[in-house]
Amino acid sequence: MDKRESTTDLAAVAMGRKPGTLIIRNGSLVNVLTGIIEKNTDVIVYGTTIALVGDASSHPIGEDTEVIDATGRFLLPGLIDSHMHVESSMVDLPSFAAGILPHGTTTICPDNHEITNVFGLKAVELFKLTSENLPLKVYPAMPVCVPSLPGMEDAGASISADEVKEAYEKGWAELQGEQMNFPGMIYGDPAAHAITAEGLKAGKVLTGHFASPDNHRGLNAFIASGITACHESTQADEALEKASRGMYVQMRYGSAWLDLPNLIPALLENPDMDTRMFTMVTDDVTPSTIVKEGHLVRVLREAVRLGVPPEKAVQMVTINAAQLLEKSRWIGSVSPGRAADILLVNNLEDFNMELVISGGIPVAENGRLLRPMPSYDYPEWATGSVHIPPQLAEDFAVPAMDPDSIDLRVIRLIPGMVYTKQEKHSFVPRRGQFHAAPEKDLAKISVIYRHEAVIPPEHHRSSAFLTGLGFKSGCAYASTVSHDCHNLLVIGTDDEAMALAANTLIESGGGLTVVENGKVLSLMNLPLAGLMSLKSVEEASVELESIEEALRIIGCPHESVEMTLSLLGLIVLGELHLSNRGLVELKDGESPRFVNLFD
Amino acid sequence: MDKRESTTDLAAVAMGRKPGTLIIRNGSLVNVLTGIIEKNTDVIVYGTTIALVGDASSHPIGEDTEVIDATGRFLLPGLIDSHMHVESSMVDLPSFAAGILPHGTTTICPDNHEITNVFGLKAVELFKLTSENLPLKVYPAMPVCVPSLPGMEDAGASISADEVKEAYEKGWAELQGEQMNFPGMIYGDPAAHAITAEGLKAGKVLTGHFASPDNHRGLNAFIASGITACHESTQADEALEKASRGMYVQMRYGSAWLDLPNLIPALLENPDMDTRMFTMVTDDVTPSTIVKEGHLVRVLREAVRLGVPPEKAVQMVTINAAQLLEKSRWIGSVSPGRAADILLVNNLEDFNMELVISGGIPVAENGRLLRPMPSYDYPEWATGSVHIPPQLAEDFAVPAMDPDSIDLRVIRLIPGMVYTKQEKHSFVPRRGQFHAAPEKDLAKISVIYRHEAVIPPEHHRSSAFLTGLGFKSGCAYASTVSHDCHNLLVIGTDDEAMALAANTLIESGGGLTVVENGKVLSLMNLPLAGLMSLKSVEEASVELESIEEALRIIGCPHESVEMTLSLLGLIVLGELHLSNRGLVELKDGESPRFVNLFD
Repeated sequence: MDKRESTTDLAAVAMGRKPGTLIIRNGSLVNVLTGIIEKNTDVIVYGTTIALVGDASSHPIGEDTEVIDATGRFLLPGLIDSHMHVESSMVDLPSFAAGILPHGTTTICPDNHEITNVFGLKAVELFKLTSENLPLKVYPAMPVCVPSLPGMEDAGASISADEVKEAYEKGWAELQGEQMNFPGMIYGDPAAHAITAEGLKAGKVLTGHFASPDNHRGLNAFIASGITACHESTQADEALEKASRGMYVQMRYGSAWLDLPNLIPALLENPDMDTRMFTMVTDDVTPSTIVKEGHLVRVLREAVRLGVPPEKAVQMVTINAAQLLEKSRWIGSVSPGRAADILLVNNLEDFNMELVISGGIPVAENGRLLRPMPSYDYPEWATGSVHIPPQLAEDFAVPAMDPDSIDLRVIRLIPGMVYTKQEKHSFVPRRGQFHAAPEKDLAKISVIYRHEAVIPPEHHRSSAFLTGLGFKSGCAYASTVSHDCHNLLVIGTDDEAMALAANTLIESGGGLTVVENGKVLSLMNLPLAGLMSLKSVEEASVELESIEEALRIIGCPHESVEMTLSLLGLIVLGELHLSNRGLVELKDGESPRFVNLFD
Repeated sequence: MDKRESTTDLAAVAMGRKPGTLIIRNGSLVNVLTGIIEKNTDVIVYGTTIALVGDASSHPIGEDTEVIDATGRFLLPGLIDSHMHVESSMVDLPSFAAGILPHGTTTICPDNHEITNVFGLKAVELFKLTSENLPLKVYPAMPVCVPSLPGMEDAGASISADEVKEAYEKGWAELQGEQMNFPGMIYGDPAAHAITAEGLKAGKVLTGHFASPDNHRGLNAFIASGITACHESTQADEALEKASRGMYVQMRYGSAWLDLPNLIPALLENPDMDTRMFTMVTDDVTPSTIVKEGHLVRVLREAVRLGVPPEKAVQMVTINAAQLLEKSRWIGSVSPGRAADILLVNNLEDFNMELVISGGIPVAENGRLLRPMPSYDYPEWATGSVHIPPQLAEDFAVPAMDPDSIDLRVIRLIPGMVYTKQEKHSFVPRRGQFHAAPEKDLAKISVIYRHEAVIPPEHHRSSAFLTGLGFKSGCAYASTVSHDCHNLLVIGTDDEAMALAANTLIESGGGLTVVENGKVLSLMNLPLAGLMSLKSVEEASVELESIEEALRIIGCPHESVEMTLSLLGLIVLGELHLSNRGLVELKDGESPRFVNLFD
């Protein structure tokens, strides 16, 4: 990936003894190293690498030298997203690259923990292989929290210190992914610290996810453990504290988690502060966010709109991120010897990408990709990840112990939020079972283990009830995107509908589907690990909109509700969630625990 | 060296479950990450590493916890000197550490190319071994220009890409030393580029020495070759150009090369500029500079005196240098998880070092070392490096071809400058030889090969004449410190005196000596490689003063003239210098060439 040209050639081009492959003339360079805008600046590129920045007027032009006039345009380094998950955009890496390059993101650090929950270490290798021929710099972050809560749920695999070590030895990961087990780190969990030790031993930058309000002892303990980047700040004072204590702040502005506006005051209220510790990331964006608003440039634009001076905002998505990654000798600035990742934009407010050059090659112009992305030929195992036999309606039955009405625990969905609330609702058994009750907005929810590994039969499935969704009768929704284990999630108001939804995805190899009155209203195929489409971001966006439209038809009006639903199985969140092993309650300041439906 | 404590312990200390080993209370932290001064700040250290920064008032104090009250004091990170040569201070590494730690330098990056010219690769290993038990962080820089001009001089060894590779593989060097062969780099010398390639392959930070006025093509070519730090700027515009093009500026303020005041305008004239690319280094300091004025803190003090805001000046010798080295996760800031290298100073002008903590241990207080430095037991080869048989007066004869008077080339010494000038003076032969003529300020100069390797007899010695020194009759000076080959340099007005001076050093195993009328006036022993004393910096300083006093007695009044003399053999400098193979002329814009005495 670090395909630096031979230094002999680069020196020859800089000295004018050899023509460059690309010359950009007369741009206004946003120099992120000095924070100064340098007018009338030329750049000479040789192959993948920048050879000269300054005045190219007397340098030779060869037969194959492409010359680009940048008069009236600003030159920026390619944008660097230091924390994100490709899987959230529901397409594979080549399609993702095709989707984001026109928006100027030229480097990503994907923490591919979704697919790793499905396939384990071989997913890490697959991701690395997939990235290799793309005109995008991909620095994979090794997932370290797979599954999120060992012993309370079952993913397709688990990652321990041994796998982390192996991935580093084999060169499959460039940095350490988000350590989400912050309680484990600060309270001294040996397994979490063993993983950290492997990262430090391998010299990797370690990233974290510190979501506790304990900005003092806990934060110090987390940083003292060697973790120097975190994207989980939600308040300005938290961000300021992290930066002051030596942790890069990765200010997040994804599709759903919009922390940036809450963090920017840390900068605006301290205008003289050195901002080198501040960066911006996307974390999770839907395909439609990319199509409609762009990728990291959308975050940059928002920061400038909120009042951050453009030069500083650009630093936060270029040189600061490169320094976070300890890769500023290769990316993050338009300087000689660095990768020729260069953006031509027409202003420093909208940052409209007139031309995107990645690795020395113009790859996109005015939002359009200039050349097709190489596709990847996936092995069979990667597209066959739903290992569940056909389902019958009775498989979804929730048996009642006795015929009397009883209060059951119910998960309350809070649209747009990552947490749920716990409620009690009275249920009257019929024919020895508890049933969904659409008239009271009570749906049934089931999680079915879908991975290849053999686990005890009692962990194959669990069921419970859900409110807050508004599904009509005779409807169901199913999805193989269900964080973090990504088991098959089925929600419905009717067991027949649930079985149809489940079987639709079992047959298609994974995805999202909506069913009403015995008919499939919409199906989005996600064959790669049951998480990702093999189509383009644009197609994925359209298909996802069709799922959302179908959800509205069956009674669920909330925006991007599939994202909220995909967290119903994520048992590290409060307050009540469902794993394949059963209901898990997590209250503030307590450890997660299994609870049963009845008490 | 990166002796980070276990993260489990660090987390336990930060959380208050385990006492720290050292607590600093109530200091004013100069936070180099944000540029903000944080009052009333405590720091908890555990072993070598910082566990917590903030409020330690409710943390436990153990039986062995040392508590330091920092009320009224500022807390700074230990200072980092990213480019310097220990040999210039004429003591070995343990003595050097003892000399500089009281002045707050806690990390050095020694480019040990002087001793490597004497011993080759085994000197690199020796330096690494010597550094291992010191309470000083030593990141050795691999010397890459040994000798400075292959084919025109003979050192004790030479370093090629193979040795560079071996040193990295064996872990003897942490970064690449100064590439002084900038013409080789920019004009494509394969040997220089092969060395660069090894550095890049090993992931090392490459440092350079770019002393050309070509701030555009040449500078771009040099940086495009992957070299991202340089200490050779002498003008503000040069410094600004380097920083803008992605090369860290290592502003130099040594004992003799005082570039800093000329570079500071780059900062003062651009007050809004981001200064992350600016650092400060010492390069070469004499023992007496250390004793009388301090080490890197002397540079820091000068920068503040010249008008750089203290917070920014401190950044330039801490976090900026750490980022240059890509080691900011371990050094360069007072933050959790970082090395406990912490300075307590009483103000931000003089930066008086009240307490220096290095690796978690208070090592010096008010300028005094608190504990003895471990000494190193050198192998025999390291202290026996002068391989020359006893000399006779006639060995120094310069034969004349015929009896007529003739103009000879003469080197003119310019005190305090690194360059010389070339002159012609008329000489009248006596007894078939040319002689020194003290009455006309014409001394004889000889360079005698002193290393173990076998070289052709015709390269064993060369002689020429020198003016500008003022030596009286019957006097001589000899030194085994003679850059870069460090052959035996003998200068005198009388052949008997020259032989005595040479024999004095041959017997003592190297050093500096001054001889007058058959008597040794002063001798400074430098047994380690003929370059370094095994005594303390204080003793070395006194001995060197005695040499300087003796030089004054024999007629040479110039300040620190031994430094200027030590460059008379450095043939990469202009205009006329003497190698063991003969006189070398170097004119601006030309290649160096051998010239003879007569034409």
